[in-house]
Amino acid sequence: MSSYAIGLDYGTNSVRTLIVDTQSGAEVGSSVWNYAHGEKGVVIDPKDPNLARQHPRDYIDGFVASITDALRKASRVKDFAPARVIGIGIDTTGSTPIPVDREGNPLAFSKEYAHDNAALAWLWKDHTSFAEAAEITETARKLRPNYLAKIGGVYSSEWFWAKILHCKRSAPAVFDAAYTWVELADWVPAVLTGTTDPTKLRRGICAAGHKAMFHASWGGYPEEELLEKLDPALVRVRRSLPEKAYSVRDEAGRLTKEWASKLGLPEGIPVAVGAFDAHIGGIGSGITPNVLVKAIGTSTCDLMVAPLEKGIADIPGLCGIVPESILPGNFGMEAGQSAVGDILNWFVESVQPGGKEAGSHASLTERAARLAPGESGLLALDWENGNRTILVDQRLTGLIVGLTLHSTPAEIYRALIEATAFGSRIIMERFQEYGVAVDRVIACGGISQKNDLFMQIYADVMGKTIEISRSSETSALGSAMAGAVVAGKGAGGYDSFDEATKKMTGVLPKRYVPDPKRVETYNRIYALYRKIHDAFGTRDYQENLFDVMKGLLAIRDEVRGL
Amino acid sequence: MSSYAIGLDYGTNSVRTLIVDTQSGAEVGSSVWNYAHGEKGVVIDPKDPNLARQHPRDYIDGFVASITDALRKASRVKDFAPARVIGIGIDTTGSTPIPVDREGNPLAFSKEYAHDNAALAWLWKDHTSFAEAAEITETARKLRPNYLAKIGGVYSSEWFWAKILHCKRSAPAVFDAAYTWVELADWVPAVLTGTTDPTKLRRGICAAGHKAMFHASWGGYPEEELLEKLDPALVRVRRSLPEKAYSVRDEAGRLTKEWASKLGLPEGIPVAVGAFDAHIGGIGSGITPNVLVKAIGTSTCDLMVAPLEKGIADIPGLCGIVPESILPGNFGMEAGQSAVGDILNWFVESVQPGGKEAGSHASLTERAARLAPGESGLLALDWENGNRTILVDQRLTGLIVGLTLHSTPAEIYRALIEATAFGSRIIMERFQEYGVAVDRVIACGGISQKNDLFMQIYADVMGKTIEISRSSETSALGSAMAGAVVAGKGAGGYDSFDEATKKMTGVLPKRYVPDPKRVETYNRIYALYRKIHDAFGTRDYQENLFDVMKGLLAIRDEVRGL
Repeated sequence: MSSYAIGLDYGTNSVRTLIVDTQSGAEVGSSVWNYAHGEKGVVIDPKDPNLARQHPRDYIDGFVASITDALRKASRVKDFAPARVIGIGIDTTGSTPIPVDREGNPLAFSKEYAHDNAALAWLWKDHTSFAEAAEITETARKLRPNYLAKIGGVYSSEWFWAKILHCKRSAPAVFDAAYTWVELADWVPAVLTGTTDPTKLRRGICAAGHKAMFHASWGGYPEEELLEKLDPALVRVRRSLPEKAYSVRDEAGRLTKEWASKLGLPEGIPVAVGAFDAHIGGIGSGITPNVLVKAIGTSTCDLMVAPLEKGIADIPGLCGIVPESILPGNFGMEAGQSAVGDILNWFVESVQPGGKEAGSHASLTERAARLAPGESGLLALDWENGNRTILVDQRLTGLIVGLTLHSTPAEIYRALIEATAFGSRIIMERFQEYGVAVDRVIACGGISQKNDLFMQIYADVMGKTIEISRSSETSALGSAMAGAVVAGKGAGGYDSFDEATKKMTGVLPKRYVPDPKRVETYNRIYALYRKIHDAFGTRDYQENLFDVMKGLLAIRDEVRGL
Repeated sequence: MSSYAIGLDYGTNSVRTLIVDTQSGAEVGSSVWNYAHGEKGVVIDPKDPNLARQHPRDYIDGFVASITDALRKASRVKDFAPARVIGIGIDTTGSTPIPVDREGNPLAFSKEYAHDNAALAWLWKDHTSFAEAAEITETARKLRPNYLAKIGGVYSSEWFWAKILHCKRSAPAVFDAAYTWVELADWVPAVLTGTTDPTKLRRGICAAGHKAMFHASWGGYPEEELLEKLDPALVRVRRSLPEKAYSVRDEAGRLTKEWASKLGLPEGIPVAVGAFDAHIGGIGSGITPNVLVKAIGTSTCDLMVAPLEKGIADIPGLCGIVPESILPGNFGMEAGQSAVGDILNWFVESVQPGGKEAGSHASLTERAARLAPGESGLLALDWENGNRTILVDQRLTGLIVGLTLHSTPAEIYRALIEATAFGSRIIMERFQEYGVAVDRVIACGGISQKNDLFMQIYADVMGKTIEISRSSETSALGSAMAGAVVAGKGAGGYDSFDEATKKMTGVLPKRYVPDPKRVETYNRIYALYRKIHDAFGTRDYQENLFDVMKGLLAIRDEVRGL
């Protein structure tokens, strides 16, 4: 008789519930609910392209709707019954902090702030706080350089403290009304377990360590001296935060009677501490030391882990190296690209190239696949949403070079894919430069399962065989695994992630193997990518760029046999 | 009783006949004939984006059809009669050399070479000869640096000798079969005047001086030593060329009886020596010293003249400084951009942005006009077809920087227009740096009459009031003026271009005045344009480019009030 665990996965536009057989990893029920507010779930401001918020109401409506529907679907599976669900795990986007009152209620739920964008959840891709991020970096560089070393050397506008500081300055009434700020990944477990007192809420190490400068070596969240220097009002926020953070192996609490009844689940089943979608997706992809897991979607997250006992050096430009933030028992290392699928979506949906039928992803992909590496003479920088790793600079922008009057939408589309692949290679090489060997690359996320061309380009650009995670929902699967682990072996789950990983994860038979000839061409183009990457993305590069256009044309003409 | 002159204007896609009243400048009949061969008149090779040829048959069919039709239309004007046509002038694209046999017949007319692209006319924008152009530049730099000084320091792949040398190497049979090569601007007058012996054909100074390294100071066409060094076979071509070249004030000959009869024109009327469309368009726009005439179409030609008696310094990067190549009695100075309207056409027709209706020039222009300078954060280099002035490098390519996930087609469209305006400013500043004052700017060509936004951006970027030529067909008008001048006062024409200019040309009441605030913003963006221009377009630039993206975002945020 099987047991089941639920994974709840909060993405940028929707939330998914996945119900998984804890013994086989079989996914028996799945349901997606699209957020109701804003544009595709994101509240934007036409006047400020940096703003991206979400309404917390969608988070609650979303788990009710998607759990209910997933249970209904799972009921078609003979063996399944809601009573056999043994635990719940949760993952979300992040850093997505929510201002809440003393009772843990989002300010957006109050009448007073119902129409104030600052009272909403500050979605990961909100970049309004770029000035504050730069200020935090500067201030930490002087006062606490060791803080920065753990998060890649630069504090990002996507992160916790930058957003709170920007709220203090741009919407002081909201800042004053907020008792504290809670990451979405911590807030959903609190709701499900009825944790109304924010001081009792268990905060996850994943969000705290990667985005909020939490580290055991300096006693948890950042010391008051640093925050006071930034703005004395931040000290109050700091004092609302706990001393300890938890990993996904830990319980956030137990499902309340009320929610159990409403959702049709057993009362009191354990709910795991939340984590970020991409991190938990590493678990769902079967991450172990020396495996690079790439979650490729609208953006990417590049994850590696290394055993705690071996220790690890700080790696500049990574989003963070945090003990147990991904896989308990290991350092979690996070890197990533701020936009990947989003760049292609922008091209297809905003630029709308190619007229009626020729401008779809499918059609552009088909034509782009007929091109050889270097054939278009195009080269792009993949910074349309800034650069997360290794430059950690949201104020960088996209670039395309090599355009001619003959450049086609399919060529540009391919160049944009290649740009993200080059960006991916830079991340891999940064790991390698700092002694983290990459023995395997496992990709997960929508693009990895849907787009052969994309994955083959990654294999050829990175010079690595790319394996694909068996599950198409690795984040939700990883969350379900967390649900199985907090439930424990006695309840039909597992006592460790080692066991859960062996039983519940796997890769597809299909894999993408690099072609030596294409690898060689891409090596040459990558050298040019590196030049413009360093010229536009760093302060000290002073080589001449005259050979970039020439080099691209030389490669193009060779490929075309001219 | 009025007299009339005919201007024949050979463009890239079609030929136009314009019939002009010599006393008032009134245009009484006009007709366009689209070339029949290739794509829109251009024979291309899908395998080689550099190739662009034309079939000489179109040139003959074109004057027959368009003169006949224009005469028919002019007949509606009360005063007009074909018998009152006193002269014909001709302008064409260039350098567009045609390989011909000993009888002046294009090899394309022979059975043997009827299907050989090398036997066609080598259209100005054919760039197959880029390697030969570089070789000519290198060789001349060592042997005859004074040659290069007259043509801007670099020999272009668009020009006469590069094309002939490339034919020798890539299609030796055609090269061997060609007795000589004749510019289209010289070939059409030869046809109309029955000049079948290529050694007797009068070649125009405009093509010879700007594209074929013809200069009186070294005895006309280049000395054999230089050509022999490039390829001994070129010496034979050199020997087929005359010692003297002529200006548009000179007769090429008289209209033959046969053509007069076929076209319905008076036998024996004078046909002026031909010139390039853009150069003669300077005359049709009313060019005089210290007036910058900008012919803005698919590409641009930027023209100035300076009195012969004053002498003039060599100006690096200009396409040429040639006595009497534009306005007799003056040095003619030519600069230009390899693509302007073509860049926008590429964006609209090849990228096809914005879906169905939103992607037209009209719709994009309307939306782009609502944007303020700097608002998009985008900056482009206008090199999709290489750079003619001041870098003289056809192997440069287009670039766009500042792209974000919010960039729209209208923003990109505006950035492309701005890029061409920045390129235009670089040309103007080069004239000024070398002591040629720019007191007025007169624009002509389709875009100048059709697109307010475009012209206002040029005024704001260049910081100059832009006047617009009254005639929408300044090249054809200039050719008709040449027809009137070779006919002379006695026949109802003029004895000098001074008189013809006063009577036959003018500007529109509407003019584009720079706005100080926009000028100031564009000055800031231009400084960034200059940086990427020099970084990608020259060998020695070694400043860091980190401030380019940052600078664009800073301007953007200021403009948006963020």
